[in-house]
Amino acid sequence: VRPDTRDEDAWIAAVSRRFGASPRVLLGPGHDAAVVAFDGREVVLKTDTVVDGVDFRLEACGPRAAGRKALAVTASDLAAMAATPRACVVSAVLPPGVTFETFDGIAAGLADAAEETGCEVVGGDTSVAPGPLVITVSAIGEPGPAGVVGRRGARPGDALSVTGALGGSILGRHLTFRPRLAEAQVLASERIPRAMMDLSDGLSTDLPRLCAMSGVGADVEAARVPIHPDAVRAGGARSPLEHALHDGEDFELLLAHAPLEVEALAALAARGVTLHRIGTVTAAAGEVRLLRDGRATPLERGGYDHLARTGP
Amino acid sequence: VRPDTRDEDAWIAAVSRRFGASPRVLLGPGHDAAVVAFDGREVVLKTDTVVDGVDFRLEACGPRAAGRKALAVTASDLAAMAATPRACVVSAVLPPGVTFETFDGIAAGLADAAEETGCEVVGGDTSVAPGPLVITVSAIGEPGPAGVVGRRGARPGDALSVTGALGGSILGRHLTFRPRLAEAQVLASERIPRAMMDLSDGLSTDLPRLCAMSGVGADVEAARVPIHPDAVRAGGARSPLEHALHDGEDFELLLAHAPLEVEALAALAARGVTLHRIGTVTAAAGEVRLLRDGRATPLERGGYDHLARTGP
Repeated sequence: VRPDTRDEDAWIAAVSRRFGASPRVLLGPGHDAAVVAFDGREVVLKTDTVVDGVDFRLEACGPRAAGRKALAVTASDLAAMAATPRACVVSAVLPPGVTFETFDGIAAGLADAAEETGCEVVGGDTSVAPGPLVITVSAIGEPGPAGVVGRRGARPGDALSVTGALGGSILGRHLTFRPRLAEAQVLASERIPRAMMDLSDGLSTDLPRLCAMSGVGADVEAARVPIHPDAVRAGGARSPLEHALHDGEDFELLLAHAPLEVEALAALAARGVTLHRIGTVTAAAGEVRLLRDGRATPLERGGYDHLARTGP
Repeated sequence: VRPDTRDEDAWIAAVSRRFGASPRVLLGPGHDAAVVAFDGREVVLKTDTVVDGVDFRLEACGPRAAGRKALAVTASDLAAMAATPRACVVSAVLPPGVTFETFDGIAAGLADAAEETGCEVVGGDTSVAPGPLVITVSAIGEPGPAGVVGRRGARPGDALSVTGALGGSILGRHLTFRPRLAEAQVLASERIPRAMMDLSDGLSTDLPRLCAMSGVGADVEAARVPIHPDAVRAGGARSPLEHALHDGEDFELLLAHAPLEVEALAALAARGVTLHRIGTVTAAAGEVRLLRDGRATPLERGGYDHLARTGP
């Protein structure tokens, strides 16, 4: 049986089987990053790619913003694992005729993000090929003292929370967001997240992934979803709530955790972390629902699927 | 002053300055891979990209060969550092309309190379964008007991050697080559290489890079350059020697080392490593010469330069 070509996750799951799973791989596909046993240590390893015309528009945003985003999206995945970025390497595929100014602008943006995140750029590779600008940043990170956090530990009854308001990031935040590294460290230091990920493809696409890895379901309460002002400004066919549920690239953290008393939430806020509870983990494996006006409906995936427009 | 846009190295050197150099970076730009201090260990980190139409022709070679090459070129850089590959992550930018068979074929090739090299595939990222297939493999490696080998240690009077015959790899070896990981381990275990790299862009392009990092020059003896049968078969405007000197993608190791007696060379051969001495390191910093019929002429760069066809 062929996997459904409209589903990125299915394609990736199908080919992941080719790569086995040795004892050296502590966490593999399905999490925000891999964790590898290395010379008596754990290395968190992640690659992420941004492409002109898909993840940014070079002509509109300029090379510096593109370079910054390329590194920031990778750092965000390390944040999702509660890991601290240490170093990265960058691969760039440049369109023919690229100017040195563009190349240098990309480097400047990478340097900006490296300084912000502590993820030093230590090497790279450059190609020229007809097609859009492609920037891939691959990083190593170090687990915090409490270890890494994957997507597997959510339990029925857990609270589901996000670290910030959602929706409408296309208006600009998808370029300027700050990876939630500090927030992840605070949360991990209190051993709060049982499962965590960053919201890159939209809540309605990403939450089912976390649920699948943990073997649980989720109820999202519509009235609790923090709606970003950009989700209202974005307009179009989607309502503000729909923007918050389905838009990609919020790069906020989504986590499952034991419900917290108000004092604990206030203590987190004092350390710079505001948790917005959006729902509850359920035992109904694979069932992700939206609760609204006393009714529960399936939360359909409305996020970005890289492979949704491909296939024979 | 703008860097010469016809020179990939100049562009990269110009932007590398943006990335500083912290004590955490033990070896940075200019070597085959970076070496980073990580939680009391050393991690060798490398990214390399292959692009359809530049590094392979997907229609001709098929996805499995492309996937295999993507991982093998990165593993070859780790070999050049005398490091052992441990794990990698893969980013693929797929052309619109890509079939699952192609996607799966790439994965099969990656799995082939992972098994050959011990560099396990532990994660990845997939995008779809108009343009050629792009595959980036980013790997971590572990230094051997004798530590990593960079490009900096060549000394005047050292022998220059390669691990195999050169030229004409375009006829097929550029897809099927075996990264010289075992050879590098044998050489490093005997502490033979003072400086080492893999030949990816052609001897005449790569040797000056090693010389620049070591602050030395080199004399290459034309009659000693091992010419691969493919360099003869390749034909065209280049002579067999020119193919051996200038063609890219041999993926043999080039190393500088103290001259070896025949007994030492025989002992290496018994362990599977044939060193072909091609010349001598000189004190004439930056001067790379070809000695032929009693005459010395500058060895002009004739290898592949990704940025040679770009610029304003």
